[in-house]
Amino acid sequence: MSQKSHDAVEQQDENQLSFDLIEAQYQLKAGRGSTQGKSVLVLVSGIELAGKGEAVQQLREWVDPRYLIVKADVPHPLTREQPFWQPYAGFVPAQGQLTLLFGNWYSDLLATAMHVSEPISVEQFKHYVEDMRAFEQDLQANHVHVVKVWFDLSWKVLQKRLDKLDPTVQKWQQLHGLDWRSRKQYDTLQRIRQYITDDWIVIDGEHETARDQNFARHILTALKQPLSEITPKPITGRWKKSKIPHQLLSFEQDGLAQAEYKAELKDLSKQVAQALRKERRNVVILFEGMDAAGKGGAIKRIIKRLDPREYDIYTIAAPEKYELRRPYLWRFWTKLPKNGGIAIFDRSWYGRVLVERLEGFAKPYEWKRAYAEINRFEQDLIENNTVVIKFWLAIDKDEQAQRFKARENTPHKRFKITDDDWRNRGKWDLYLQAAADMFEHSSTESAPWHIVASNDKHTARIAVLKHIIAQLKATP
Amino acid sequence: MSQKSHDAVEQQDENQLSFDLIEAQYQLKAGRGSTQGKSVLVLVSGIELAGKGEAVQQLREWVDPRYLIVKADVPHPLTREQPFWQPYAGFVPAQGQLTLLFGNWYSDLLATAMHVSEPISVEQFKHYVEDMRAFEQDLQANHVHVVKVWFDLSWKVLQKRLDKLDPTVQKWQQLHGLDWRSRKQYDTLQRIRQYITDDWIVIDGEHETARDQNFARHILTALKQPLSEITPKPITGRWKKSKIPHQLLSFEQDGLAQAEYKAELKDLSKQVAQALRKERRNVVILFEGMDAAGKGGAIKRIIKRLDPREYDIYTIAAPEKYELRRPYLWRFWTKLPKNGGIAIFDRSWYGRVLVERLEGFAKPYEWKRAYAEINRFEQDLIENNTVVIKFWLAIDKDEQAQRFKARENTPHKRFKITDDDWRNRGKWDLYLQAAADMFEHSSTESAPWHIVASNDKHTARIAVLKHIIAQLKATP
Repeated sequence: MSQKSHDAVEQQDENQLSFDLIEAQYQLKAGRGSTQGKSVLVLVSGIELAGKGEAVQQLREWVDPRYLIVKADVPHPLTREQPFWQPYAGFVPAQGQLTLLFGNWYSDLLATAMHVSEPISVEQFKHYVEDMRAFEQDLQANHVHVVKVWFDLSWKVLQKRLDKLDPTVQKWQQLHGLDWRSRKQYDTLQRIRQYITDDWIVIDGEHETARDQNFARHILTALKQPLSEITPKPITGRWKKSKIPHQLLSFEQDGLAQAEYKAELKDLSKQVAQALRKERRNVVILFEGMDAAGKGGAIKRIIKRLDPREYDIYTIAAPEKYELRRPYLWRFWTKLPKNGGIAIFDRSWYGRVLVERLEGFAKPYEWKRAYAEINRFEQDLIENNTVVIKFWLAIDKDEQAQRFKARENTPHKRFKITDDDWRNRGKWDLYLQAAADMFEHSSTESAPWHIVASNDKHTARIAVLKHIIAQLKATP
Repeated sequence: MSQKSHDAVEQQDENQLSFDLIEAQYQLKAGRGSTQGKSVLVLVSGIELAGKGEAVQQLREWVDPRYLIVKADVPHPLTREQPFWQPYAGFVPAQGQLTLLFGNWYSDLLATAMHVSEPISVEQFKHYVEDMRAFEQDLQANHVHVVKVWFDLSWKVLQKRLDKLDPTVQKWQQLHGLDWRSRKQYDTLQRIRQYITDDWIVIDGEHETARDQNFARHILTALKQPLSEITPKPITGRWKKSKIPHQLLSFEQDGLAQAEYKAELKDLSKQVAQALRKERRNVVILFEGMDAAGKGGAIKRIIKRLDPREYDIYTIAAPEKYELRRPYLWRFWTKLPKNGGIAIFDRSWYGRVLVERLEGFAKPYEWKRAYAEINRFEQDLIENNTVVIKFWLAIDKDEQAQRFKARENTPHKRFKITDDDWRNRGKWDLYLQAAADMFEHSSTESAPWHIVASNDKHTARIAVLKHIIAQLKATP
């Protein structure tokens, strides 16, 4: 075959590839919202000058660019100030989207490891890799298909390319702080990235055309792969119901005299403010409980001595459509406190194993899996400078009935009572069981559930404040 | 009246206020998406210890907290690195929402002015205030009702409150870097805030109950005020059509020999990369033009020598529902480059005066007003470290027909041709007129329109690169 006809065949192949990619993009988009709907998140890393930039530019020409999102962020060294995924939470694609992430948690990890002045230990490194894989497993289980691509380049070819480098682009190539002329650094990088890339697609960057086509074909394969092939096997077998804790069933509770309550409240709200204000530590406080259990009232007492600039309160309602097209934790990832902030949640991610479980919005294998997902999520927070304080405010059914009636008889409180509340009340025992299962599967040593008897509002509020102070003090 | 019955009346009033606020919130929510739909954005500032925090906390108890968003951000000193509104763009509420902004552009301005080491001049200060008011006018015209509330406190009462201050909260009160014990600083602040607050609601912070109720009543009034009362009067009178530039009508253009094109392209794409890379300056490049005018091809040549980590490309399609519920510029505010970044827009905010005008998505008074809004928006960018480069790629109708046909005959390019494109083609002359009006009303000295003859793709691409280099060089 002549060179010319060879080129023609090549061109035809590329046109076909382009056509297939666009078709696959449209399929992806059409599937969103369905049970098989998914998004594709491509993590791109590799040796400098191996051509990842060029491969992405080439891909951009083959696909429909309206449905390709390419994101590159500055590196975020892993300093235990925030979970590795937090800087990228905003980039997690919605179902139907294809997103390429240039800077990502692995490039952060490699940058952190290669930073010679404060290197991290091999154990830390491996621990990070494990965490990252667990996080990606959870993404996949939640309809985000994660594809990891490493662009590789041999030492010899890298040096040749550095020789030919245009001086105007040289600056960029140095950005990662690595000296690509140092054989030692190159070898170190190649050695440590082996811990990472054994489940990656590795593309050799030497031959440009092959590299670009190879990359694009892997993207095509990923776009077309059915969700069922990438999600973990559902948990099957009988669900063992947990025992319902006695605090949810028996409600003998002494009230608190008004004067005593006021004095304690005054003292404790000062202490809480002081404890919460400790700098450089984030605090997450969340409340769950039956409707009218007193969540709002408890929150009010926590913030009594704080300025609204010091905290955020999130009252969690049903998710919006754009939130439903992402992992259920996504809408919380973007609400987490930073730089020593405080976030208070009136209902939380535990909705997954409470209302979503009972209303059928989450399938059994989804809510059963959610305990582990939530535990990992909270563990990531705790290991990264955040205290997680969890409350279940427990009232009994009679008390709820009284509070419902009181609300209905108060015009400006009537909005707090809806048909949903009455329906939920009809499922009281199911909620009790769901709460019991939740305590069993998501009480951890560093983020235990505080079950607070709340038939008496005053006692409950005082107890909440005391728990917060105690847990904050116990956390170094 | 006895104290007791006085208190009871007071309580009844507050209950009624709470009821009315909740009703008004629901009305606001119900109106979203309608022609009278709006959001309410409350800017809160004032003297320390005047009780803005307490008033907001009290408001939170009276309203339905699910529909109240309170945001407090760290101060952003006005350094001409970004427009004053950019840090807050993400907080602009969608129709139906009520948002309170603690940190806001005015607190930034006051902080910048009070910062003794580098004070800004009175002229700069006044210029900022003018800009801010213009921005707020544009917000109001785009269904965001802006309410500004200053919490005031006399020197005497402030000193009394400082005397009584709990030492555990003292730290917070110092955060703004002002010494509230200094009569001089207090007087300076009171003097300069007069330039700002003559169109504000001023609330005296001395009497707590009155303060909180006063604040809440103003919020209630704002919630209930019809949109028509706050939006500027529509521009009326005959619309004077602009003359269509000859470059849009005559297309005598010499082609460029392949060899010459390749050589020039190689040279220019290096120069462009070098010019774009200049640090600490943001660049926005946008493309408009008829369908198939060659926008994608031109963009490809700009980025040829850049790494995908150095730029973002946004291909602008029809807005999503959540975008439609905010000012039409909002979806661009969140895509602006920062820290010396580059953003390239394949179609842009000019859609307002092109497709939205011609398809009737924007009413005549809306697109007529949009030129001034867009000019202000671009001016804000230009004055704050950003170069704005605007291209219209001009082809004639025959050339378009040929390109459409070529696309239809190429399977992997067929996606580029839709029914919309054919319909737009049917409105060719209307688009020409809209483009002419756009050039007339939005070509400014610092952001001129570059009309590029594009029947010959090669010539057009070369011209685009040359314009970019020239405009970047001309900008210090």
